[in-house]
Amino acid sequence: MSIFLKVVPVPEAIAAVLRIARHPVNETVTLEGAGGRVLAEDVRADADIPGFDRTVVDGFAVRASDTTGAGEAIPAMLRVKGRVEMGSAAPAPIRPGESIYVPTGAVLPVGANAVVMVENTEMAGGEVLIKKPAAHGENVLLHDEDFSRTDLVLARGRRLFAQEIGMLAAVGCNNVPVFGIPIIGVISTGNELVPVTRVPDSGQVRDSNSFMIGAFVREHGCTPKYYGVVRDDRNALRATFRRAVAECNAVLISGGSSKDERDMAASLITELGEVIIHGIAIAPGKPTIIGRAGTTPVIGLPGHPASAFIVLVAIVRHLLNAMTGDAHPREMRVPARLSQNVPSPKGREDYVRVRLDAGVATPLFGKSGLLNTLVKSNGVIRIPAESEGLEAGAEVEVWLW
Amino acid sequence: MSIFLKVVPVPEAIAAVLRIARHPVNETVTLEGAGGRVLAEDVRADADIPGFDRTVVDGFAVRASDTTGAGEAIPAMLRVKGRVEMGSAAPAPIRPGESIYVPTGAVLPVGANAVVMVENTEMAGGEVLIKKPAAHGENVLLHDEDFSRTDLVLARGRRLFAQEIGMLAAVGCNNVPVFGIPIIGVISTGNELVPVTRVPDSGQVRDSNSFMIGAFVREHGCTPKYYGVVRDDRNALRATFRRAVAECNAVLISGGSSKDERDMAASLITELGEVIIHGIAIAPGKPTIIGRAGTTPVIGLPGHPASAFIVLVAIVRHLLNAMTGDAHPREMRVPARLSQNVPSPKGREDYVRVRLDAGVATPLFGKSGLLNTLVKSNGVIRIPAESEGLEAGAEVEVWLW
Repeated sequence: MSIFLKVVPVPEAIAAVLRIARHPVNETVTLEGAGGRVLAEDVRADADIPGFDRTVVDGFAVRASDTTGAGEAIPAMLRVKGRVEMGSAAPAPIRPGESIYVPTGAVLPVGANAVVMVENTEMAGGEVLIKKPAAHGENVLLHDEDFSRTDLVLARGRRLFAQEIGMLAAVGCNNVPVFGIPIIGVISTGNELVPVTRVPDSGQVRDSNSFMIGAFVREHGCTPKYYGVVRDDRNALRATFRRAVAECNAVLISGGSSKDERDMAASLITELGEVIIHGIAIAPGKPTIIGRAGTTPVIGLPGHPASAFIVLVAIVRHLLNAMTGDAHPREMRVPARLSQNVPSPKGREDYVRVRLDAGVATPLFGKSGLLNTLVKSNGVIRIPAESEGLEAGAEVEVWLW
Repeated sequence: MSIFLKVVPVPEAIAAVLRIARHPVNETVTLEGAGGRVLAEDVRADADIPGFDRTVVDGFAVRASDTTGAGEAIPAMLRVKGRVEMGSAAPAPIRPGESIYVPTGAVLPVGANAVVMVENTEMAGGEVLIKKPAAHGENVLLHDEDFSRTDLVLARGRRLFAQEIGMLAAVGCNNVPVFGIPIIGVISTGNELVPVTRVPDSGQVRDSNSFMIGAFVREHGCTPKYYGVVRDDRNALRATFRRAVAECNAVLISGGSSKDERDMAASLITELGEVIIHGIAIAPGKPTIIGRAGTTPVIGLPGHPASAFIVLVAIVRHLLNAMTGDAHPREMRVPARLSQNVPSPKGREDYVRVRLDAGVATPLFGKSGLLNTLVKSNGVIRIPAESEGLEAGAEVEVWLW
């Protein structure tokens, strides 16, 4: 029943999770609730934006040709035909020799093609003295300068941050088509695990992985569904696993750091579906399982917290991004110099936790059962499978977390 | 009544918002809901973590001295006294010449001080052949190797990401003391603004700032409270402003791109409290107001979307981070080379939107009334007040958004 641990390279593991990722059905949310969601359809401008020529300064709308040669000494003199009120149409068109006052953002009257800033003018009775010439188009925002009607404004697969939300508001997209939020089942296994609320006896540890994984899932735009700690009992695990597969869009099982436990998880996945990958050439995190039950992706994570976290960052992240529909997930990578030598065997990708400070990445070595290196680090460096390690002073890329 | 626009440098504006920031009263949340929140108290280990010496491999617990000189040719032979079950105490201590099987994560029996990996052993009846010597402490995680009882685990002011959540779970901190979530009032003003659901007439534009600001507020761990669009009417604005100040921990008013409107917002803040700064040496975003009504911070943002967004990123972000209690907010800055010359007048900080691609930052110039440069860019570069611009090829720091 034991499934052989044939390790595959990290890129192959990533390709596998991308292949099995499915996003939930689309839904429609209002703009208030759309922040952080991912667009499920292209959004186009419903009209020209801003929709009318408008001034970008407080000043006088003019025909540029009426201001040619104007200066402090010999200003141009134009008849003022009133003012445009914000949000209203212009009271009249302007003809040669005429001008209308326009506050910032107001409509440019028909006939005008430039605005002279109020600082460069002087009122004189019903007329205005223009002391600086205006070029055609000066201080004017054209009616379709932001977007023209039917222009693609934002593409499907775009995650919506503040600026995209503003953009959707501008084109009147209040009912936003977004991908559904994936529900990710989180199961911890292990007879040594006790719930967080319990004081562990000797031999027991609290289940830290469930909540760590759940928080990671949430940070990546998915909703965790917790199934708690399941004992290493085949029937109990099968029942919980089946329930999670039925209720969730993907399932993450953590635990099974010993060989017996790993084998049980793998054989259960085989019983209910298919193990695609069992073992990844990554350290820490080698005993990772990628599989599916029906069309539901299932990942078996190592039980050691630091191992589980690295697999979340290096592998599961790609699954979650794909399941949310995010076509261009943000990645935070910054260059740094390594503070000391880091050895690494050829043939596996090593993920070394680092503390990045003022451009220097200091490795934090520690056993993968420890949590303190995770909270003391702020990122990780990757040593490729083909490398035998890095030397002090080497330029590295830190993936921030 | 007009308040003079005396511009201050950006660092002074940041100092001002930090001075007026207050965080709401603390609250307690469960671990499930603690992701993204900020710790309001130091958290210490309630016991040694992991709490007992444990093995990090599947193997045989031994006294290291019993394995000295062991090898393939002449293995050490030890009597096997059973196995430790996961989550249970060891069945017996081990004495010289004895061994107990331990699965990964299990308790190390009393008397043992190392573990030999199962791969380097062979069972022979009731005895095990040890084919590789083990050093003292080898493959063992000590009972306080992660944290000792009363060690500071996480400090007040720490924002809780997945790894911190795992850490809190490990120390049994299920009731997490966090800072309250600030409620940020969002008001848009301007007679030209119509709600998102309306089709604008000539002279009108949709209110894109409210939702953009609200989404930004949410991305920074606060909850927006929307007050909609208020017409440029002193009484209407005063009523809404008063309500927002009473109901929120801070208020952001956007709009007032024309001088009249700016003056009205400033004079209202003066009426109900104090204008601290009116005008910042930043472009875009100069006509920004920083003030307070009672102890409630109030920021008047420019009406142009791109200006408002830059002020959110450069100034308001600091206010929101401080109000959430976040002592070490994440900043995403990456180095890049500039693709072309960018001029900038001395004496003001210019914030130029850029598209960062493969280490090259391409400036996206555009009027501050436009939204398209915001959604086409993925960050901003800052040209300091003392600089007269940057040349093509210059090394710049891109603040990603």
